Amino acid sequence: MVKNIMIIGLCLGCIGLQRTIAQENIRPAEKKRVVSPEVHADNKVTFRIFAPQAQKLSIVGNWMDRNAFGGNGKQAMQKDGSYWSYTTEALPSDLFLYQIDIDGAVLNDPLNVYQVRDVSNTFNYFLTGGEQAALYKVQDVPHGTIAKRWYESPTLGSTRRLSVYTPPGYEAGKTKYPVLYLLHGMGGDEEAWPSLGRAAQILDNMIASGKIKPMLVVMPNGHVSNTAAPGESSRGQYPIDFFTPDVGSGKMEESFADIIGFIEHNYRVKKQKSARAIAGLSMGGSHTLFISSYLPNTFDYIGLFSAAFRMNEKAENAVFRDFDKNLKRQKDNGYRLYWIGMGKEDFLYKTGEQYRKMLDDIQMKYTYRESEGGHTWTNWRLYLTEFLPQLFQD
Amino acid sequence: MVKNIMIIGLCLGCIGLQRTIAQENIRPAEKKRVVSPEVHADNKVTFRIFAPQAQKLSIVGNWMDRNAFGGNGKQAMQKDGSYWSYTTEALPSDLFLYQIDIDGAVLNDPLNVYQVRDVSNTFNYFLTGGEQAALYKVQDVPHGTIAKRWYESPTLGSTRRLSVYTPPGYEAGKTKYPVLYLLHGMGGDEEAWPSLGRAAQILDNMIASGKIKPMLVVMPNGHVSNTAAPGESSRGQYPIDFFTPDVGSGKMEESFADIIGFIEHNYRVKKQKSARAIAGLSMGGSHTLFISSYLPNTFDYIGLFSAAFRMNEKAENAVFRDFDKNLKRQKDNGYRLYWIGMGKEDFLYKTGEQYRKMLDDIQMKYTYRESEGGHTWTNWRLYLTEFLPQLFQD
Repeated sequence: MVKNIMIIGLCLGCIGLQRTIAQENIRPAEKKRVVSPEVHADNKVTFRIFAPQAQKLSIVGNWMDRNAFGGNGKQAMQKDGSYWSYTTEALPSDLFLYQIDIDGAVLNDPLNVYQVRDVSNTFNYFLTGGEQAALYKVQDVPHGTIAKRWYESPTLGSTRRLSVYTPPGYEAGKTKYPVLYLLHGMGGDEEAWPSLGRAAQILDNMIASGKIKPMLVVMPNGHVSNTAAPGESSRGQYPIDFFTPDVGSGKMEESFADIIGFIEHNYRVKKQKSARAIAGLSMGGSHTLFISSYLPNTFDYIGLFSAAFRMNEKAENAVFRDFDKNLKRQKDNGYRLYWIGMGKEDFLYKTGEQYRKMLDDIQMKYTYRESEGGHTWTNWRLYLTEFLPQLFQD
Repeated sequence: MVKNIMIIGLCLGCIGLQRTIAQENIRPAEKKRVVSPEVHADNKVTFRIFAPQAQKLSIVGNWMDRNAFGGNGKQAMQKDGSYWSYTTEALPSDLFLYQIDIDGAVLNDPLNVYQVRDVSNTFNYFLTGGEQAALYKVQDVPHGTIAKRWYESPTLGSTRRLSVYTPPGYEAGKTKYPVLYLLHGMGGDEEAWPSLGRAAQILDNMIASGKIKPMLVVMPNGHVSNTAAPGESSRGQYPIDFFTPDVGSGKMEESFADIIGFIEHNYRVKKQKSARAIAGLSMGGSHTLFISSYLPNTFDYIGLFSAAFRMNEKAENAVFRDFDKNLKRQKDNGYRLYWIGMGKEDFLYKTGEQYRKMLDDIQMKYTYRESEGGHTWTNWRLYLTEFLPQLFQD
């Protein structure tokens, strides 16, 4: 008797599904047979969209030009019945972002659920084939854990959110691990490296292949006037303003010891200089530069990715006031790697050149890596894959 | 001298920003001054979009009708210059989803970065004011941790991903906690309860107000033919097919002890029946029903939210074959709460009625809660807030 009732339940369930409401939001199947984007074996990519009444559609992709999202760099889609499509040339091995321009409004591809926020906009993304993108994909290897945690910052007087990657085996093991502190740029937050940066995938894959040492990666929020990423704090769902008043205040640098303290108190990590690395992109590169000099005997590995060498002379704090002295102390204390990565077309290229000259003048050693391209996640992901194998190797 | 170079760096940085490329993707400021959606104090909501050449725009929202996303329930936007807008009537206190129909293509609001995937589509979302939605918002209260972890399932022969919520104070403390296993529906995965379900916010807020006991919440992936949510496994970024071959196979139920074993081995939790709860929505309600009878002396608290009472007679396993016997055993072993929630308009309403009659026939006690509405996240979030205060209270 019980079984009969169950079968009725099963059948009702099936009918329900046909009526599209197994869950709240099932789209009519008709629209779902079409795939977009489709990455072909030769790394050409086809986009498709259902838009029967639209006048003009284009794909706006970040491979087209560096400022693509201002309205340049579109490629027109071709109409075929109710559908429009466009196929690219073969693309490099990487993660790409795009949107669709539909009659002048730039929107996301409704057939591609894979979306990611970059600064104040959400984009569709896809990964192509090839060696570099393979590092960014989830592979069948042991996986670490990504946790979103909140820590107390006594210096700032606030409770703040960060992302922590712990390597495969961390929870069940007893080993103590080294730590990389990995900082985002002005438009980012504690979600940036785990999403656009593909940090967990890169770590999983490079640990699995033996190219890097297992380590924790701590990804804090570099805007001290926010406690968390947009939507993740009590500020709610506000329109994103990436230029926060804290930029250049020196407060991220002043309060950074709170983060190190939290991690070393809450995780099974090694607590010496030789087991600490810090790196960051753009504004996070500036943070890295000033944090590592403000705490001049703390990190053996320093990475500046497309760094903004920004200093706020007006800020009344030792981060900027004592910078010359701090940098000298950092140099005298010694370190194992001071790594600088910069793209040839980066708008910060000249500043970087001047900073390197300054390091030369005080005979402070560094490793310099100049790549193609500009101020892009393509470079920051690449730099991470090049920086990691140099850490904690003895 | 060092300082002078820094200042040059700062200025170059500012010029760079003006040119829109401090990071890769900064939109022209002109488009960004407009806010969409804007939730007013009276819970009316205004949507705005920049679409100078479009012919017809509508808002498609899940408050309009239950099947809104098939193309019904649109509300036309009004054009004013290059912008279009629409303002709703006052909405209830909840989280809502919407998209924009632009000349027949249904897409997302480019001014709203807050997006969430539901089944196989990504929607914009917003939260209104009021008491219920306040439970879904991040408030200034102590926050737990959400971790994405991978566990071994010997029964399935695979490594799988789950979400774990640990309550505030877990990491630094020594207390052992009870555990709620919280299961998603057919269109979901281990991301569903943490995103659409607002599980971490609900737990943080209700723990802070003292209404519920601190507990761990474990949110596994209920599709055993997948190892993780779309995009999070080595399958890559595939088009989502929610109707996986494992639905109704009984394998989730058969392998569930692997999850309990993993949690009890890896976390500081109480390991007795009185400290274990299980609940799920729709397919996850079915899982809950069969897991709790298949492991008939494991859970003291059982919650069926809009449950599909689905049984696969063909599946050659004890989950379905011995169901009558298992259920009887579960009844005889005893439990503290068997909670059933169902919406009056749910397409599974009749099946639920039959299942309750069956429980009556064997004199198996349950608590029944009938709500307005249908098979929706509005109900599942509500049920969670009603179910939680009844757990682990002695």
